Amino acid sequence: MSSTLGHNFIGGQRSAQGSVQLNSLDATTGEALPHAFVQATEAEVDAAAHAAAAAFPAFRNLPAEKRAQFLDAIADELDALGDDFVATVCRETALPAGRIQGERGRTSGQMRLFAKVLRRGDFYGARIDRALPDRQPLPRPDLRQVRIGVGPVAVFGASNFPLAFSTAGGDTASALAAGCPVIVKAHSGHMATAERVAEAVIRAAERTDMPKGVFSMIFGNGVGEWLVRHPLVQAVGFTGSLRGGNALVKMASERPQPIPVFAEMSSINPVFILPDALTARGEKIASELAASVTLGGGQFCTNPGLVMGLHSPAFSQFVERLSANMNDQAPHTMLNAGGLVSYSKGLEHLHGHAGVTHLAGHPQQGEQAQPQLFKADVSLLLNGDELLQEEVFGPTTIIIEVEDEATLKSALTGLRGQLTATVIGEPAELVSYAWLMEALQEKVGRVLLNGYPTGVEVCDAMVHGGPYPATSDSRGTSVGTLAIDRFLRPVCFQNYPDALLPEALQNANPLKIRRLVDGDITDSAL
Amino acid sequence: MSSTLGHNFIGGQRSAQGSVQLNSLDATTGEALPHAFVQATEAEVDAAAHAAAAAFPAFRNLPAEKRAQFLDAIADELDALGDDFVATVCRETALPAGRIQGERGRTSGQMRLFAKVLRRGDFYGARIDRALPDRQPLPRPDLRQVRIGVGPVAVFGASNFPLAFSTAGGDTASALAAGCPVIVKAHSGHMATAERVAEAVIRAAERTDMPKGVFSMIFGNGVGEWLVRHPLVQAVGFTGSLRGGNALVKMASERPQPIPVFAEMSSINPVFILPDALTARGEKIASELAASVTLGGGQFCTNPGLVMGLHSPAFSQFVERLSANMNDQAPHTMLNAGGLVSYSKGLEHLHGHAGVTHLAGHPQQGEQAQPQLFKADVSLLLNGDELLQEEVFGPTTIIIEVEDEATLKSALTGLRGQLTATVIGEPAELVSYAWLMEALQEKVGRVLLNGYPTGVEVCDAMVHGGPYPATSDSRGTSVGTLAIDRFLRPVCFQNYPDALLPEALQNANPLKIRRLVDGDITDSAL
Repeated sequence: MSSTLGHNFIGGQRSAQGSVQLNSLDATTGEALPHAFVQATEAEVDAAAHAAAAAFPAFRNLPAEKRAQFLDAIADELDALGDDFVATVCRETALPAGRIQGERGRTSGQMRLFAKVLRRGDFYGARIDRALPDRQPLPRPDLRQVRIGVGPVAVFGASNFPLAFSTAGGDTASALAAGCPVIVKAHSGHMATAERVAEAVIRAAERTDMPKGVFSMIFGNGVGEWLVRHPLVQAVGFTGSLRGGNALVKMASERPQPIPVFAEMSSINPVFILPDALTARGEKIASELAASVTLGGGQFCTNPGLVMGLHSPAFSQFVERLSANMNDQAPHTMLNAGGLVSYSKGLEHLHGHAGVTHLAGHPQQGEQAQPQLFKADVSLLLNGDELLQEEVFGPTTIIIEVEDEATLKSALTGLRGQLTATVIGEPAELVSYAWLMEALQEKVGRVLLNGYPTGVEVCDAMVHGGPYPATSDSRGTSVGTLAIDRFLRPVCFQNYPDALLPEALQNANPLKIRRLVDGDITDSAL
Repeated sequence: MSSTLGHNFIGGQRSAQGSVQLNSLDATTGEALPHAFVQATEAEVDAAAHAAAAAFPAFRNLPAEKRAQFLDAIADELDALGDDFVATVCRETALPAGRIQGERGRTSGQMRLFAKVLRRGDFYGARIDRALPDRQPLPRPDLRQVRIGVGPVAVFGASNFPLAFSTAGGDTASALAAGCPVIVKAHSGHMATAERVAEAVIRAAERTDMPKGVFSMIFGNGVGEWLVRHPLVQAVGFTGSLRGGNALVKMASERPQPIPVFAEMSSINPVFILPDALTARGEKIASELAASVTLGGGQFCTNPGLVMGLHSPAFSQFVERLSANMNDQAPHTMLNAGGLVSYSKGLEHLHGHAGVTHLAGHPQQGEQAQPQLFKADVSLLLNGDELLQEEVFGPTTIIIEVEDEATLKSALTGLRGQLTATVIGEPAELVSYAWLMEALQEKVGRVLLNGYPTGVEVCDAMVHGGPYPATSDSRGTSVGTLAIDRFLRPVCFQNYPDALLPEALQNANPLKIRRLVDGDITDSAL
């Protein structure tokens, strides 16, 4: 078993200059684990930023194939993390071993997928407009465009996916793929996990001869602020709460040079259940929905927090069944004590709201989160009630019953931006409710039919994003290959001799990539 | 000659509910022109936003070919604006008729280029990952991604390109192409011009049966704030000053739902002149550079405001020649009286700075801008002096001579983000200064060799963007076809029946576009 050192990872070296020590906690017992982590000092954060900036020119100019080999090597190192690693993650997060094994595979698979993106070459966005020396009234110079990394990226991982959205998660994978060195602020909820993963990344970097400084990681509370304010850091990736995301966005916008923050924050992921589906399979839906709401303790960004349907006897029956199912769900140990406190507070607010009725769930007490079901009046949505749209992170959801289609249509306008929206309906009624799916497109990043939002596939077509407050930038996604776009920007080269151009733009097309040449897409040489 | 009505354009209607009237000024004489414009009221701004939001669902769902026809129709209407229109623009801006005729062609050409983008179909960003029902341990659902418009866009035009960067300029063209209705805040410096252009857009919208509300325009001072704060507006395009851009970014970030602002703001566009080029053609460079600095009264975003070279007798000789050339340049009437005041103030600050020496130019007095040449100590760049990097909008530039390559390298780190950087050098020395071009890539949107930055080609490969303060988002461009990306966001469709998918994602590929299908690019049907 690998021993935990607890030192920061600064530009390829371990470093422990600080005097503040932190302990990781056993998520189930709340007891401190026998590992101390040394909080980073401002000087260490500065050193990490300088190491990243020093690595950037070499790293961004590496052939994409070399960066792909680095990502593949990280994937191999992650896969090689054994049972003792899984045990560590389980202790720090109270997530079951099977889930962690699956998430490990998802995380290494994500690295390999970005390696594939690098080999495919479309991320370059290569565009060439050749010179037109004889054009009247003015000649056109030779102009060529390619995308380059924005510079060092700070990554703040999430508590709920200690592997796939953390140290070597989607933000890190996409930033590294884009040619951006990464500095991770280790999540305080799973520092031992973070150390093991960071060691794996460093081993991969050494094995593939990456420049020092391509990856750093700092431990500590409040140390992320130094990172976001550091002049050499050029972008931020974040997954977490609305409050946390908003704070980082504000901090980044107040820098002398503002930088973009890609924050994935808050979503209640509404589910719309149409009448014919209720009639045809209401019981099944009630059972599946209860499972989706409580999956992983309800600690998913895409947990369904709002269920809407049209008033009918079938809907009343469905709500009864869902209530019964929710009463049957087992309590869950949360990722950390703070999560349980937040969940309890969120429930208290719902219990205390005049427009909200409690339908099912055992009293919230003890060390675990009790699944809960509430019902809210549609007026809360029509009047833009804040509470209703606040994500309660845990195994709970809220039912809203509307009188008719017109009310449903009005209620939609009050809905904030979301990661997902789900419509459950029979084939024929989906056609007649096409207006609903159209309206939802303007509110969300992903619309799904006859499924549940809690599964988020890592692939080319995934969008894990959406209008505010789901994220801070609806044009991005933090899952799937399009995530690389967040960390790339276009640069134009005018009137360059062929030999001085980046390979992606040279006449001979040595990388054999598809390029937009004089308005047409081609993979030929010029 | 078309008569000027001076009413706002609100959702396809002319509207003049307000009581405040504004007059456009003759840029040469400062006299009020005989046209009154009625300042928009908050209710009119609200009506424009609601009209835009109402138009959005239909407009974004139009076949791209229909939107292309709309853009083509705008282009035809712009081309048909006759000599009286050109005379109006000249009176409002003091720009010469030949320049305005050229800019009219550039503006209609821009519309036609975006029509071509729509027909090419790559803007959809279509990606398909087909279902894998038998995958272990979990099946993959069918996932398909396409990009849709972000929603209504507010556009703030620039004074210096009354056609190409204003009412029907690049922001408007790219937003409309993206399927986003546009509301323009007419530039107060050329309201009569704006009215004629808006009429042309409306004629085109009517001719091609676009939904009402696809284009609105408001007149007035301070009315843009209502637009940026309006909950239905989803993005902002702006070209103008750093102060103006920063104010809009702040305003947009403080909304309950923050929205992106694409502001093109401030750039001093450094030009680096290498030793061998000076020896080979110093005289020619001095003459060309003086012409570039004073072109159009120096009122270009890409006006070269900083010229750097290495200490040598040849550089001294070059500076002498440039001084003589600048002394010979004629004064220019500025776009408006405010511009002349700003220019005079900018010059005063330079004259008053201890590290800056005046080299050439007649005293700034009277009604026109006098071309000026200054020299600054490199320490200003090394120490991050603010004044040096502030754009002085007008026909002036600053020389910096550095002792050696090492000093040049250090000075670069102090350089802020820029739209462009230019390197002038002989073929062999460009190779030995490759490090310079590499370093500049990380600072700018466009690096050009042996040319001058003042020409900005409208094409696929152009980047008119760059790190802050050149723009507020270095991942965008406001010139060239990539500008459409600013107003698009991805949406994922999960488990949709084929018939309910957008055409771009249907199995048969009815639009015959290139799509990323299961990781490979193809234009085939599935």
